Amino acid sequence: VSGEFERIDGFLRAFREAGGVSSGPEVPLGPGDDAALVSVSGPLAVTTDAVIEDVHFRRAWATPGQIGHKALAVNLSDLAAMGARPVAFTCALGLPGDVDDAFLHELARGMGRVASRHGAVLAGGNFSRARELSVTITALGRGGGLRRDGARVGDRLFVAGTLGEAAAELAGLVAGRLPARGAGTLHEPVPQVEAGLVAARLARCGIDVSDGLAQDAGHVAAASGVRVLIDFARVPRSARFEALTAGMDAATRAGFVVAGGEDYALVVAAEAFAAGPLGEAGFVEIGWIERGSGVEVRGLPPGTRLAGHDHFG
Amino acid sequence: VSGEFERIDGFLRAFREAGGVSSGPEVPLGPGDDAALVSVSGPLAVTTDAVIEDVHFRRAWATPGQIGHKALAVNLSDLAAMGARPVAFTCALGLPGDVDDAFLHELARGMGRVASRHGAVLAGGNFSRARELSVTITALGRGGGLRRDGARVGDRLFVAGTLGEAAAELAGLVAGRLPARGAGTLHEPVPQVEAGLVAARLARCGIDVSDGLAQDAGHVAAASGVRVLIDFARVPRSARFEALTAGMDAATRAGFVVAGGEDYALVVAAEAFAAGPLGEAGFVEIGWIERGSGVEVRGLPPGTRLAGHDHFG
Repeated sequence: VSGEFERIDGFLRAFREAGGVSSGPEVPLGPGDDAALVSVSGPLAVTTDAVIEDVHFRRAWATPGQIGHKALAVNLSDLAAMGARPVAFTCALGLPGDVDDAFLHELARGMGRVASRHGAVLAGGNFSRARELSVTITALGRGGGLRRDGARVGDRLFVAGTLGEAAAELAGLVAGRLPARGAGTLHEPVPQVEAGLVAARLARCGIDVSDGLAQDAGHVAAASGVRVLIDFARVPRSARFEALTAGMDAATRAGFVVAGGEDYALVVAAEAFAAGPLGEAGFVEIGWIERGSGVEVRGLPPGTRLAGHDHFG
Repeated sequence: VSGEFERIDGFLRAFREAGGVSSGPEVPLGPGDDAALVSVSGPLAVTTDAVIEDVHFRRAWATPGQIGHKALAVNLSDLAAMGARPVAFTCALGLPGDVDDAFLHELARGMGRVASRHGAVLAGGNFSRARELSVTITALGRGGGLRRDGARVGDRLFVAGTLGEAAAELAGLVAGRLPARGAGTLHEPVPQVEAGLVAARLARCGIDVSDGLAQDAGHVAAASGVRVLIDFARVPRSARFEALTAGMDAATRAGFVVAGGEDYALVVAAEAFAAGPLGEAGFVEIGWIERGSGVEVRGLPPGTRLAGHDHFG
């Protein structure tokens, strides 16, 4: 294990090998000074999210690259849920003594691939010794008008991405049915950045599904002062979800879809006229907004648990 | 201990009780959505820094309020070192099971007092379970032209704030000579925000002293391609430093001043014409910039250690 400044250099090198960049037109000064400089006209969406060992991931189940991937992806998902375009991010790492340079560089490459794909510049960071591995990212995006309180009675509800796969995969890992470190939504979630940019033009209300569809729809209902209705049969699932859950009982499978977290699908509410263009952008209509409060999921198999996802808790 | 959403509400309430705010003209959307919105014209300085239990603080030595104070202050010090005015910050907390609501609220109030004093709006955050207590803050400031690579041959070197007190206090705590949880620079550092704003108009180069004066001056030397000379006798020390170190040998005392970290003084390099206005703003001239490389501290007592500060390591 090398010294702090060498470690940071090695991290940045690996990040760049994977296509990541650490300066650009909107980040005229990147890592290495007391602060970076970010230059964007108009409002910036700002979000922070941490992934912590044994809470959000286990080293036995995720590759270092997947840890770096997920840490950035969950933050870009928050930007997508605002309809903001990723600009820059900072990365604070808590590093236990048993994290060696090879591990760190693989983590950086996983982060670099996601950064490159979505145009997010690594503007700065911080390394610290710690007892547990953690990656805390703050992401900045341009624009962002999709608020949780923007849903109106009569709006339709749409989702980009699929639901249930991450929870089904987690259940498979917990039960020992699935091999560790496989590719999939749980460890390599895809933030719905492009869908968010489309929704920013067509919708007023958005949220990403990190804690479970029913719980996150509940945040929209509470913030907007409305009732959210979801037609369970229309909620999209991935082919991998179907394969992972083949043979399971209907209530368990439905629980993954409506209460499982960490799929990072994007839910938006929009007026009916937007259904066409949202559909062309990959959104699927799954429900609507009524007067009232709370969330109702129609067509659930009897016995389905709606309780919120609590990571490994 | 309450649930996650109640905990966040309680934290925000305590933060506001201490004078902190979570929205304003430059933060039209604060915590509670997928991301906050920050609206500032011109470039933003962005920095991230974490304080982690048993690396940057010990719960036995610092009050919860001091932990919240320091976590924010070290980030505002980075903004000051860029000459940026604090605008907003996010706060990610790693919370072990033994951190109760009373502790969390005291931490929030300590953070709220610093935020209020320096005009930084709490724009968002994230709570996560963790094995060790950590506070990771990302701060955004307006403007910021003081770069580490801005020193030029012939410039003078100035400092705002005093040096050595934090290291002397840490040594006293380690040796059991000092009572825990006292007020002072170690746990309640004062970021040189106003001095930084003055320096932004009068200097090109700045850095805050977090790792030790000699080491941080070395960053300026390396980034600017110059040699930094410091006259030890002119480096300002606080009255509390003198009291804490009375009776110690000269080399130990000097080591606190030139190699001790965490004082968060602000060092800037500026042309000679700026000496007058910088002096009026509280800066003290401590050296100058020459052709060459590295750092030389003149007038040190024999045997003084110049090695960098490594927190509790």
